[in-house]
Amino acid sequence: MIIVLKPGVSDEDLNNFKAYIEKFGVKVDRSQGENQTVLGLVGDTTVINDDAIKANRLVEKVMRVQEPYKRANRMFHPLDTILDFDINGRKSKIGGGSFAVIAGPCSVESREQLISVANDVKKAGAMFLRGGAFKPRTSPYSFQGMGCQGLDILVEAKKQCGLPIVTELMEFNQLELFEDVDMIQVGARNMQNFNLLKELGRCRKPVLLKRGMASTMTELLMAAEYIMAGGNDKIVLCERGIRGFDTFSRNILDLAIIPALKKKTHLPVIIDPSHATGYSWMVSSMSKAALAAGADGLMIEVHNDPEHALCDGEQSLTPDAFASLIEVLRKYAAIEGKVI
Amino acid sequence: MIIVLKPGVSDEDLNNFKAYIEKFGVKVDRSQGENQTVLGLVGDTTVINDDAIKANRLVEKVMRVQEPYKRANRMFHPLDTILDFDINGRKSKIGGGSFAVIAGPCSVESREQLISVANDVKKAGAMFLRGGAFKPRTSPYSFQGMGCQGLDILVEAKKQCGLPIVTELMEFNQLELFEDVDMIQVGARNMQNFNLLKELGRCRKPVLLKRGMASTMTELLMAAEYIMAGGNDKIVLCERGIRGFDTFSRNILDLAIIPALKKKTHLPVIIDPSHATGYSWMVSSMSKAALAAGADGLMIEVHNDPEHALCDGEQSLTPDAFASLIEVLRKYAAIEGKVI
Amino acid sequence: MIIVLKPGVSDEDLNNFKAYIEKFGVKVDRSQGENQTVLGLVGDTTVINDDAIKANRLVEKVMRVQEPYKRANRMFHPLDTILDFDINGRKSKIGGGSFAVIAGPCSVESREQLISVANDVKKAGAMFLRGGAFKPRTSPYSFQGMGCQGLDILVEAKKQCGLPIVTELMEFNQLELFEDVDMIQVGARNMQNFNLLKELGRCRKPVLLKRGMASTMTELLMAAEYIMAGGNDKIVLCERGIRGFDTFSRNILDLAIIPALKKKTHLPVIIDPSHATGYSWMVSSMSKAALAAGADGLMIEVHNDPEHALCDGEQSLTPDAFASLIEVLRKYAAIEGKVI
Amino acid sequence: MIIVLKPGVSDEDLNNFKAYIEKFGVKVDRSQGENQTVLGLVGDTTVINDDAIKANRLVEKVMRVQEPYKRANRMFHPLDTILDFDINGRKSKIGGGSFAVIAGPCSVESREQLISVANDVKKAGAMFLRGGAFKPRTSPYSFQGMGCQGLDILVEAKKQCGLPIVTELMEFNQLELFEDVDMIQVGARNMQNFNLLKELGRCRKPVLLKRGMASTMTELLMAAEYIMAGGNDKIVLCERGIRGFDTFSRNILDLAIIPALKKKTHLPVIIDPSHATGYSWMVSSMSKAALAAGADGLMIEVHNDPEHALCDGEQSLTPDAFASLIEVLRKYAAIEGKVI
Repeated sequence: MIIVLKPGVSDEDLNNFKAYIEKFGVKVDRSQGENQTVLGLVGDTTVINDDAIKANRLVEKVMRVQEPYKRANRMFHPLDTILDFDINGRKSKIGGGSFAVIAGPCSVESREQLISVANDVKKAGAMFLRGGAFKPRTSPYSFQGMGCQGLDILVEAKKQCGLPIVTELMEFNQLELFEDVDMIQVGARNMQNFNLLKELGRCRKPVLLKRGMASTMTELLMAAEYIMAGGNDKIVLCERGIRGFDTFSRNILDLAIIPALKKKTHLPVIIDPSHATGYSWMVSSMSKAALAAGADGLMIEVHNDPEHALCDGEQSLTPDAFASLIEVLRKYAAIEGKVI
Repeated sequence: MIIVLKPGVSDEDLNNFKAYIEKFGVKVDRSQGENQTVLGLVGDTTVINDDAIKANRLVEKVMRVQEPYKRANRMFHPLDTILDFDINGRKSKIGGGSFAVIAGPCSVESREQLISVANDVKKAGAMFLRGGAFKPRTSPYSFQGMGCQGLDILVEAKKQCGLPIVTELMEFNQLELFEDVDMIQVGARNMQNFNLLKELGRCRKPVLLKRGMASTMTELLMAAEYIMAGGNDKIVLCERGIRGFDTFSRNILDLAIIPALKKKTHLPVIIDPSHATGYSWMVSSMSKAALAAGADGLMIEVHNDPEHALCDGEQSLTPDAFASLIEVLRKYAAIEGKVI
Repeated sequence: MIIVLKPGVSDEDLNNFKAYIEKFGVKVDRSQGENQTVLGLVGDTTVINDDAIKANRLVEKVMRVQEPYKRANRMFHPLDTILDFDINGRKSKIGGGSFAVIAGPCSVESREQLISVANDVKKAGAMFLRGGAFKPRTSPYSFQGMGCQGLDILVEAKKQCGLPIVTELMEFNQLELFEDVDMIQVGARNMQNFNLLKELGRCRKPVLLKRGMASTMTELLMAAEYIMAGGNDKIVLCERGIRGFDTFSRNILDLAIIPALKKKTHLPVIIDPSHATGYSWMVSSMSKAALAAGADGLMIEVHNDPEHALCDGEQSLTPDAFASLIEVLRKYAAIEGKVI
Repeated sequence: MIIVLKPGVSDEDLNNFKAYIEKFGVKVDRSQGENQTVLGLVGDTTVINDDAIKANRLVEKVMRVQEPYKRANRMFHPLDTILDFDINGRKSKIGGGSFAVIAGPCSVESREQLISVANDVKKAGAMFLRGGAFKPRTSPYSFQGMGCQGLDILVEAKKQCGLPIVTELMEFNQLELFEDVDMIQVGARNMQNFNLLKELGRCRKPVLLKRGMASTMTELLMAAEYIMAGGNDKIVLCERGIRGFDTFSRNILDLAIIPALKKKTHLPVIIDPSHATGYSWMVSSMSKAALAAGADGLMIEVHNDPEHALCDGEQSLTPDAFASLIEVLRKYAAIEGKVI
């Protein structure tokens, strides 16, 4: 951390300020110029609050050199994190050369619907089954998901087709209901629900952490850090579009975050082109682009009858369209040395 | 709701689609042009999901004419909502010609700190005392608030100085701890924590609902609608800055939402210039601007020692600066016929 | 400027890099920590290109301490810039306690229209008459302004009512046509039309420089710097709304830029609430807010028949509404010690 | 265009309003519901100004069904536009199965530099040579390009290596200097420089039109429409990043605009990953992603000595890195049935 002081700081003030900072366990290097004094902090600055430093009357500017996260930081953990799953001997993984496709309907609507979609996406090559049981909806008058019944249907589908299941947890005290869920999704709106993150840190289940709609990359990694600080490092990061000024797509899919995350963190990164664009006819090109950009997987909405979906039908692929997409993705994956 | 159909829809498809929509209890008007067919839906369309309509293969475009909220809608509730508070006979209100100033530190740090600030802001003219006990922080390594102990200190300060207290609830199952709290704050990150909103709908305490960092006005009103749908209509809306591309202020304070909200809803609107700008030297001008723009009040951070604040010191006013600001605001309020 | 070097830079590399930087005429202070080397550049760093520094293989991070503008910088020119106008002995000014109201139609549509509006706004208290002759329009099929004929009408209105006139220049080689124009407007879309800015630097007319729709405060000041670098320091900055994700207003009016600009520059600042919001019913509250926030003036669209305006009727005030607004603004101005 | 009227419009008002609209040459369908009246306009509505309609006191809401552009609209021109180039018998094209790579330095710095880079990129597989002669720079104190001398060097490089050249025109009255330039670039800052667009409509040279930093897709297409309205339909659209709130990349590369543009327009679409991200280490992944998403080409900055580039060195590839990238892109292109 570099601290530029205001002009004219007295020696006494400077010494007191240095002493204050050294209490955090860091060493303070001083660079005295003609017009300005610069302090360089050496050591673990993650425990120092930038805001508190900026509020000090002596301080002109502050710049972080080290990132504020440690456990999620590739600098300290150079090897890629790989998540392994085993459903009755059927093994799958995220990261490490596996291109993991998670597919299924936006929300679980019935036993028949889910089993049908589950079999279709498995046959096409999906590695995980997704489906929402508890749905965050903008309107209190919209369908809010089937709740616990939806969870039961998911677990049954998992038993029948052998795919690990991914579904969203909206409330940490419902965690016990998710015992048979293989990966817990934290939705974009909950990326900074810190109590939820802390609780997920205490459990040992893989977590699919979605980037918030207006969250920076650093905030996403700090959210992961919350979970990791609790001891759970099985985290998959997911870009799902950020809010923008144009309306041709629902959100802006920020694919450049893939190489940026690959540089900054060891955690796997997947892309959700369905929520990002909001339109099924954009999903194919954005899926290919995500693979080409270096993603470790995709999360795609597939519905057997998009027109009558209770939620987000406009962005869902039919099982046939999904199967065709996987065919093309396999060609791209081969170039990148990845396996779907 | 207006639905524009794609060209070449058959009569059979059209009739089936009309029948499907009429099941929602609305009447369907058809306008047949040379090139396009337009359906106008008449009745309560809040129960109809735009997305489901857009996903239909017959549909080209959809436009809402009525807003998707009812209870928060000024059209159905033309009179301003006014919230009344009574602490041992000391009455205060939000809305209805009262310009309510909520002041206090970002977080409760100690008994001495809070009581001192409470007395200062009361003397200057604040109507409510604020202070965070449970703090949402970007970093897991930052100070997370004093928790229950902080709540106890707030309640004690309320008893001593007679100001109603406002503090943030992050988790709905902690609601019982907030019995002596006079207004419960929902933070920007929780604006779409729908379980929290539903629970607040079941309680009968006033709620201060902050706009999310990337939330539209309609989403803010839909969040209020969640609470109101549960039966609790004591809601104060709060603009606290939205995310932008520039860094001269922490967020962009969107003051034009004040006249827009005044047109669309009957709920009172307050402004938080401290979090919006992030700098104490901007708070005064933005406070005056908020009053001039028609706000019903302000939420201002005041700290007796900003430099040593454990949180957000950079944006906190000293008690003296706060008192001077209130003096000026009283002159502005007089022009608008409001009382501080 | 502070430069943080990557770890493990050799002494030779470091010395070469220092020598390279010193060629720009600045002194280089070196701070050597255990893990990192920091260079502090002392002197005039406005001639150094951040990007070139960042591209150097030795460099980890760069932070500017001084702003990249000099002539627009309050640090070097602490006194407020004030612009004086004199139309046949009728004096007016922008800055220095004058709250300057510029009013008139979006575009000049006819002699009758402009003279009528000019007389109305003068009577109400406007200090300047505005009106577009050359109009930047999103569609090639929209009305593009009356061009030179519009300029003639503006000059005639100026003669008849005695108000200085403000109108937009879109093309630097049309500058000679603007001889009788008192202040030349640079539109938001041209804020970074650098050839135009350079040409305006060579002329000696006051310039009203509008902030671009997605321009940072620093970019706005660098645009002013372009004009000032040519020798013309008669510049008024104008905030007119930035692009955002919501649609309740056309743009987001960023009023916090007023105190920020007042801190960073000596140039006067005015606000255009008409283009910022796009709706006439928001203009009054945003005008009052702008004054309260410390602006030096306003630019307001007034049309005698908004419904039949050829351009932007939706955001234009009627002359009566404008007159009422000025009445209220005078009360606010009195509090701030300003005169309308 | 659909117009929703306010409640309670009288028959007389309605008839007058219909008559007013019919003057634009469109037919007006009326749909009368219990609570609202909806007008559907049938015919060419591109000449109707939405704003004027919205400003009418009878009107509640307006929704466009048809796009406001015609010549750029795929609906009226279903076949893809293909641009052909022929330099001394060496043929190249943009669109129609050709994946066109435009490469070269940000700015022309010297004869040696440009010729060297030109030969390198040609050898690697580039189809066009780029290089800025007139440079738009944020700071008046930065290198502004070599100007006419830079143009001469570009033309010489074209003669030597046989690649068509692309360079930016900032001022329409410099058009005659660009006679030997093969494709004229309109920079992001000039996307809505309407005089420039009109002039380019009058010339017959291919135009590379970059999306503005905060421009919507519709605005980009309206800018193309300006050029096409003048009779020049040789246009290539270029996405180069839009402004966002995060700083890990310079801008947000909005790749979803590729499928959206492919749906809406027949014009070819290329991507500039260098300006979009600002970092050379992101260029490779974003280039592959652009190809995978359906782009017709790329515009990539290549510099023989990025560290000493006078402009944008941080985002430039070395010739070797560029050659490696082209190798990988060829594999991707093969899957898509395209040729580099």
